[in-house]
Amino acid sequence: MAIFDATLFPFGVGLVAILVAIFIIRWILKKDSGTDRMKEVSGYIVVGTRAYLKRQIKTIFLAMPWLAALLSYFFGWQTSLTFICGALLSLLAGYIGMNVAVRANVRATNAARKSSAATFRLSFMGGAVTGLLVTGISMLGLYVLRLIFSGPEDLQVLVGFGFGASLAALFAQIGGGIFTKSADIGADLVGKLEEGIPEDDPRNPAVVADLVGDNVGDCAGRGSDLFQTFSDDIITGMILGVLFVWKYGPNAIIFPFVLESVGVVASMIGISIVKERKRLSHSTVLYIGLLTTAIIGAGGLFILANFMMNDITLFLAGVFGIIAMLTSTFVALYYTGLTGKPVRQTAECSKGGPAINVITGLSFGLQSPILPIVAVIASIVLAYWVSGGSAYALIAANISTDIIITFIMASDTFGPITDNAGGIAEMSGISGEASKTLEGLDAVGNTMKAATKAYAMASGTYTSFTIFATYFAAASIIGIDVTTPYAIAGLFIGVALPFPLASLTISATAKGAFKMVDEVRRQFKEILGLREGKATPDYAKCIDISTKFALKQMVLPGLLAIAVPITVGLLFGPTPLGMLLIGATASSAMLGFFFNNTGALLDNAKKLHETGLCGTKGSESHKASIVGDTVGDPLKDVAGPSVLIFMKLLGMTALLMLPAMLG
Amino acid sequence: MAIFDATLFPFGVGLVAILVAIFIIRWILKKDSGTDRMKEVSGYIVVGTRAYLKRQIKTIFLAMPWLAALLSYFFGWQTSLTFICGALLSLLAGYIGMNVAVRANVRATNAARKSSAATFRLSFMGGAVTGLLVTGISMLGLYVLRLIFSGPEDLQVLVGFGFGASLAALFAQIGGGIFTKSADIGADLVGKLEEGIPEDDPRNPAVVADLVGDNVGDCAGRGSDLFQTFSDDIITGMILGVLFVWKYGPNAIIFPFVLESVGVVASMIGISIVKERKRLSHSTVLYIGLLTTAIIGAGGLFILANFMMNDITLFLAGVFGIIAMLTSTFVALYYTGLTGKPVRQTAECSKGGPAINVITGLSFGLQSPILPIVAVIASIVLAYWVSGGSAYALIAANISTDIIITFIMASDTFGPITDNAGGIAEMSGISGEASKTLEGLDAVGNTMKAATKAYAMASGTYTSFTIFATYFAAASIIGIDVTTPYAIAGLFIGVALPFPLASLTISATAKGAFKMVDEVRRQFKEILGLREGKATPDYAKCIDISTKFALKQMVLPGLLAIAVPITVGLLFGPTPLGMLLIGATASSAMLGFFFNNTGALLDNAKKLHETGLCGTKGSESHKASIVGDTVGDPLKDVAGPSVLIFMKLLGMTALLMLPAMLG
Repeated sequence: MAIFDATLFPFGVGLVAILVAIFIIRWILKKDSGTDRMKEVSGYIVVGTRAYLKRQIKTIFLAMPWLAALLSYFFGWQTSLTFICGALLSLLAGYIGMNVAVRANVRATNAARKSSAATFRLSFMGGAVTGLLVTGISMLGLYVLRLIFSGPEDLQVLVGFGFGASLAALFAQIGGGIFTKSADIGADLVGKLEEGIPEDDPRNPAVVADLVGDNVGDCAGRGSDLFQTFSDDIITGMILGVLFVWKYGPNAIIFPFVLESVGVVASMIGISIVKERKRLSHSTVLYIGLLTTAIIGAGGLFILANFMMNDITLFLAGVFGIIAMLTSTFVALYYTGLTGKPVRQTAECSKGGPAINVITGLSFGLQSPILPIVAVIASIVLAYWVSGGSAYALIAANISTDIIITFIMASDTFGPITDNAGGIAEMSGISGEASKTLEGLDAVGNTMKAATKAYAMASGTYTSFTIFATYFAAASIIGIDVTTPYAIAGLFIGVALPFPLASLTISATAKGAFKMVDEVRRQFKEILGLREGKATPDYAKCIDISTKFALKQMVLPGLLAIAVPITVGLLFGPTPLGMLLIGATASSAMLGFFFNNTGALLDNAKKLHETGLCGTKGSESHKASIVGDTVGDPLKDVAGPSVLIFMKLLGMTALLMLPAMLG
Repeated sequence: MAIFDATLFPFGVGLVAILVAIFIIRWILKKDSGTDRMKEVSGYIVVGTRAYLKRQIKTIFLAMPWLAALLSYFFGWQTSLTFICGALLSLLAGYIGMNVAVRANVRATNAARKSSAATFRLSFMGGAVTGLLVTGISMLGLYVLRLIFSGPEDLQVLVGFGFGASLAALFAQIGGGIFTKSADIGADLVGKLEEGIPEDDPRNPAVVADLVGDNVGDCAGRGSDLFQTFSDDIITGMILGVLFVWKYGPNAIIFPFVLESVGVVASMIGISIVKERKRLSHSTVLYIGLLTTAIIGAGGLFILANFMMNDITLFLAGVFGIIAMLTSTFVALYYTGLTGKPVRQTAECSKGGPAINVITGLSFGLQSPILPIVAVIASIVLAYWVSGGSAYALIAANISTDIIITFIMASDTFGPITDNAGGIAEMSGISGEASKTLEGLDAVGNTMKAATKAYAMASGTYTSFTIFATYFAAASIIGIDVTTPYAIAGLFIGVALPFPLASLTISATAKGAFKMVDEVRRQFKEILGLREGKATPDYAKCIDISTKFALKQMVLPGLLAIAVPITVGLLFGPTPLGMLLIGATASSAMLGFFFNNTGALLDNAKKLHETGLCGTKGSESHKASIVGDTVGDPLKDVAGPSVLIFMKLLGMTALLMLPAMLG
């Protein structure tokens, strides 16, 4: 170590991130929540969120002790302990973040009655809390565990942490995704299409479930996803790092951890400059914040590569990784942006009816993954090549993709907060300037959501790639025998696996939505005066339906991600299992981009109608585009995010059981 | 050779198959074509088919000379010659078969006015012509070329034949698929949904294009696909066979060819016993014919394995292959059958509107590939294992999957013939008993189509697997280095490739359908008296639109299949290219099953409404199911069949350029 004591740096940054988060939380809670009606509506959301969370935690806690016991039996109490920490801390970060989000939303609504600048700042800061908590808690947790288990051979114990974080993420994302989309689809299909009432109308019985869903799906879901990516990357980085101590000294192990901290610092600076500025749109301000973060982070990487590692090729490798992230993000913005050809053409095709709208959306969606995947793969090949054939370049590139993670998380949670703020305004009868401000911010939130999702997919693919690279290195597998069919069989199974996973999540959503449609229709029929706005719908009943369907469906996907790799590993050995990971990564990445972009572009094709840029609101082609949006909903918010987490979980499961297979 | 001169056997069987086909054609043409109106309608279809074919051939002939010249320059005139033969013979088999089909259809309509048994027999025999021609012409062509190029080192020259057949298949399938679905969707959306007139109503301007489409899509498309599978299997079987001359003598090379002939003989026997029987449904008769074919073929395989090769494990390997085919077929029948849970539940979900119908269909479709893929992979692993680790077992298993190919092709073409026959009846005002007979046969045809498609996917996956195994063997690649990212990069590109291919074909269909909707709407608006049945629509204009869109879109997919493997091979060498093939096979197989089954089950969910088993005709939920059917159309009839051909074409391209890479 040349300049500073690197081991303390991540600890310090993690602590600061959490302290800043606490400071922001206190700042937000001091704001005013507005009128009594606003407080009432906000109360519904808070209660609904709490009800869901309580049952989700209960469900997860039913499974955890068994798994912990099994892990303890097979791999020792240490792995079991890290597993519990990983799962709990992931849930904790998401839950605190979400609790802040459901309090920031109503305050944003209130702020909108006075100033657009304050609303923007408040919403973004509400998101920043989740971003800071996700990375801060992960770093502190891993730092403390690393203090306890400090030998180089102890690194395997930390895999338990990644496994726990991954499993918690799968549960949170699948549960949250199914919840939000059952509610959303049910609310839209009956409310917009059949009853012809606006989005977020208080007469719609599913409207509160929809608002709750935005929080449990987007906020908690993405939070746990990025917690997983962030944690997995530190762990695999340190495990791979051990193999390079001969080259870089002990720094080889610490570098990934330190670079992650640099990213968090860069993000904090990026976050701090985000505020409404004259002559700049909100999106532009966010892009500037993002680029600032990336540039400062790259600067930090340059310093680390040069002075800590004495290897400038690591800097170049990292830059390739960052470029791949930006490419994926901009491709997603092209495919899903309101002004691009894909969305415009899909909207145009609604004039041929819902079927042609959906087909066109699917066809654009199917072509959208190719560039991001090529960008990711090319950046890995280039990083390897520029470093003269060192696998350590993969670590540098992979961790560099995380530099913007805190900022991304802040922008992502910004979405549900502004979306909810708009909903609360609509339900509280707030119109005029405030309503316009919130609509504008909601649109910005939607765009950011598409961008952050693409980032999460690309960075998750990098993570998954690094996990199987770590797996092969740890298993000392250097060549795959292709004269026997076993390795190739493993690969085929891997490519196949994300399909049934996606199926499970989509069908759960469809079933939930179907029940929700039934329930909303029932309430409109049976509750007298509901249509006229003279009676209150039974919001809780709708929340209950979403909750039930969401939680019932978490088990099978979890089993799939754990049982299949274990079976393949035990039956056919480490090499076919490794090939399974490669296949699952490639296939999940393609499906993930496909699902996300298809859903987002169908969503925006509908929005084009609602803004009057193509067709008119209420026209046949608008109705056709609502069908398309609904088809896309479970793809982009359930299946896509789930396969992303799934591939990383598969990898961590394999990494976890590797010693058992080898020993 | 122990018992008979094996080399002459394939020649004899090929010749007999073609003679039998000619005999059947003469028998069909002697039948009566019915009333003047029937002849008039049939005339529209024949003229439409001819118009499409003429332009398709013209388009293909524009590309062929350039490719032939390039092949001649790089690989010698021999390869160029076999390339031309492969492409021309593939087109020839499809075109003759289709010309027979468009004549058998009207005669089947006429037969239905007298006897159900005669209609069934005639329709199936019409299909048998294509089956016999596809296999007969392939065998004769390869036999003659093998006589000309007879050294063991000349086998590489035959790869040109497979490449030509593959390229022709891609063109025929993509062109035909886009044609048929643009017409079908256009006809349905305006006719059924907007005008509320029945399917195949003569007032619908797109109805003739739709009937023509059934022939150019299903008949010519699937014909060229199975011609490709059949030819590729013989070629790769012989190339791999050379490596086993030390074990089996020269029989190692001839065995694949002989076994294919045994399959054709078995199929001819199976075909001969298909006729209407008391107390048996038409489907049952067809299943009995199929099983008879499989059992006789397996018996032949047993004899060959025992007496020609002295290796009974080859028989076992073949049986595993056959079981995998049957599994895939029955899984498809479960997912797409009218009585299974997937179709019933999807139909039920139409009550929640078109979006939930589509989502449910997609979710069942996404889970449907897992069992077929596991069956195929398991059979390959078992074949390898039972043979004590011999790659020759793969050949035995792969060729065994072809044993039923002639029978399958007959059952497949049976579909468009009965479908057309029903359409001609509807358009000619024939009702009563005849119409009922044809409706019943059409339903059987639809079920068979789902089954034969699943067979084509499974057997094509086997073919593609064998192609890359041949590639690795021919390149003497035994191990894949996983310490560098190059091989894995190739794999990722392979997994990614089928997605843009599917996108291209689906978007072409959507565009064509959109134009068709416009045109049909225009005709209903502008042609006075059309709605009342007093004026004749402009059928030719609709055919022209389908043709234009279909042919324009053949070029880019062809380029994708040729340019990408060449680029990867030249840039990164043979190993990454081989990995690309593996990835493309796994991914195409999954997508193929997914697309095919999703489309078929959405189709049948609609049929459940039309038969009154779920909801009623004309209800909102029926309309929702029509939207679902339309979304599924391009998936099952364009994208699915195209990715199947695509993966085999990629493999043949790689096999073709291998010597250039190694030399």
